[in-house]
Amino acid sequence: MSRAPPDVVFIGKKPLMAYATAVMMHFNSGSNQCTVKARGQSISHAVDVVEVVRNRFFQGKLVIKEVKIGTELLGEGDEQRNVSTIEIVLSKND
Amino acid sequence: MSRAPPDVVFIGKKPLMAYATAVMMHFNSGSNQCTVKARGQSISHAVDVVEVVRNRFFQGKLVIKEVKIGTELLGEGDEQRNVSTIEIVLSKND
Repeated sequence: MSRAPPDVVFIGKKPLMAYATAVMMHFNSGSNQCTVKARGQSISHAVDVVEVVRNRFFQGKLVIKEVKIGTELLGEGDEQRNVSTIEIVLSKND
Repeated sequence: MSRAPPDVVFIGKKPLMAYATAVMMHFNSGSNQCTVKARGQSISHAVDVVEVVRNRFFQGKLVIKEVKIGTELLGEGDEQRNVSTIEIVLSKND
């Protein structure tokens, strides 16, 4: 993840609606694509965010273009560990 | 999910290695495809399982064919709620 594309929402520990609103605002600002990213335990939360935005806010108008999963090495020295990642690319049908 | 295809591993609350072993055994029994499914909080766990199997057990030999996310309605009456789901289709490169 060296390149930081625009329109990325990172999912952390905030309430679901905080992220759902962020994704919605991206699309309402004229963008047609938004990527939702998360790591570790937040992966489940990211899927929840995407599903709420799709089903409740944009019924039928948002398409999941791609879902990628992967692994990232976090930390340094003895504290290095692998963390799973997810990237969900959403796109708007106009 | 009315149709239960073969070679499906459902991820729950067991330790990661229990599921990683189940996925590995599917492939070692001659099957070329395996689907990993999970719901709710277990979604993160499912991604961990897939990443461990891919990176540690089958380096370079397993391909993620498809990742699908969705929503399922669980429970009855007042207890109905939406739960996010994930399906990860793995396929073996021979």
